[in-house]
Amino acid sequence: MGLVNPAEATALRSEFEALQEDYAQCLDDDRVEEWPDFFVEKGVYRIVPRENDDQGLPIAILSCEGRGMLVDRVFSMRHANIYAKHFYRHLVGRARWLGEHATGIHRFQTNYAVFRTLDQGNSEVYSVGRYLDWVVRDQGALRFVEKRVVYDNTWIDTLLVTPL
Amino acid sequence: MGLVNPAEATALRSEFEALQEDYAQCLDDDRVEEWPDFFVEKGVYRIVPRENDDQGLPIAILSCEGRGMLVDRVFSMRHANIYAKHFYRHLVGRARWLGEHATGIHRFQTNYAVFRTLDQGNSEVYSVGRYLDWVVRDQGALRFVEKRVVYDNTWIDTLLVTPL
Amino acid sequence: MGLVNPAEATALRSEFEALQEDYAQCLDDDRVEEWPDFFVEKGVYRIVPRENDDQGLPIAILSCEGRGMLVDRVFSMRHANIYAKHFYRHLVGRARWLGEHATGIHRFQTNYAVFRTLDQGNSEVYSVGRYLDWVVRDQGALRFVEKRVVYDNTWIDTLLVTPL
Repeated sequence: MGLVNPAEATALRSEFEALQEDYAQCLDDDRVEEWPDFFVEKGVYRIVPRENDDQGLPIAILSCEGRGMLVDRVFSMRHANIYAKHFYRHLVGRARWLGEHATGIHRFQTNYAVFRTLDQGNSEVYSVGRYLDWVVRDQGALRFVEKRVVYDNTWIDTLLVTPL
Repeated sequence: MGLVNPAEATALRSEFEALQEDYAQCLDDDRVEEWPDFFVEKGVYRIVPRENDDQGLPIAILSCEGRGMLVDRVFSMRHANIYAKHFYRHLVGRARWLGEHATGIHRFQTNYAVFRTLDQGNSEVYSVGRYLDWVVRDQGALRFVEKRVVYDNTWIDTLLVTPL
Repeated sequence: MGLVNPAEATALRSEFEALQEDYAQCLDDDRVEEWPDFFVEKGVYRIVPRENDDQGLPIAILSCEGRGMLVDRVFSMRHANIYAKHFYRHLVGRARWLGEHATGIHRFQTNYAVFRTLDQGNSEVYSVGRYLDWVVRDQGALRFVEKRVVYDNTWIDTLLVTPL
């Protein structure tokens, strides 16, 4: 992907939206072992409160740098945490293409909502916010160079057992 | 629709997403008499709890087989049930094409959220989950061969006066 | 935009959906000064309860006619109202094209949900409903001739400090 023209931008956005949906349904289906594969080898994943991001303070409450740390995160989720069973469900909006950040790296912003359903319970709004994503074509597929989850709610479950 | 190439798959997904939105807005506009027409003559509609579906136990809490049963369902909704007035509102995500199940029958998975607004009240999360759909081109339009609603919440209104 | 053929309708819908997402993210990013620019010079913005709209009574709880009134609305939001800090987050569904209303003016219906996050608090469902939009190509971009927000909940914050 070099510099893009409008038709390429439309095709790219469509492909990116399919990536977002695959990502969302991977997490919702609890196939979290596949999650690191959405990132490039040195891919970065961060969860940042909106207040910090708005002030240009990218202080993350969770930060994973490189696929190895993502794999570790999955391992600790599966083996270390004790938690009640619950389901997550993502809804993502349409993506806005924010331009080509560097050669072949494209930036998108997308609104999201995640709902959580506790065992024996009703569904509730768990987290809403925006994804800021930098993607590149890598080994035939779009992958995240960085995925930054900027969430609106000031409170978030500190155990945070699953990626957003 | 025979075997599809990538461009056909993109066009098919776009057409399917338009179908999903028409379906959602039909229910939200309370034009439920038009609901059976989204299905083929022998179309199947099921609502299944996620726990059952995950375990390969497709035990439905509601199951309609054939357009006649769908029409009956609408009739009973309109004439038999007594219920407080409420509104529903669907939001559906982008569709993932899961492949061609049989010649001309395509399978999709889509996340959804339904909000309910009670008379004089606020809006609440009513149901979240995924649609598993099998569609075919029938009399010039895509229609459901089967629509399976797999919902995350373990509790659902037993009267369940409206399709999801 | 004159009368459209199916391919043009698909392209138009895609362009309209990008407009809706830009609109949503403009409000969510609190860049409300840019909001009037989504409308044509004489553009109309209304918020109408669903019960009124269903009965053909387009009695709005908020009505702005012309870009000047929209600018005034932004000014009063920024300078007159006292309110606790809160964030909004929009999710919009796919758009249904309802046809060409008059030469070059196209009509769409789109489901939406808006979530609100209060300072130090969790996120909640704030408003769900449908957008009824009339758009035209104006100075190189699609803009709203009229945007009618029809909301399901019978109660809405009377101060209503932000557009939906």
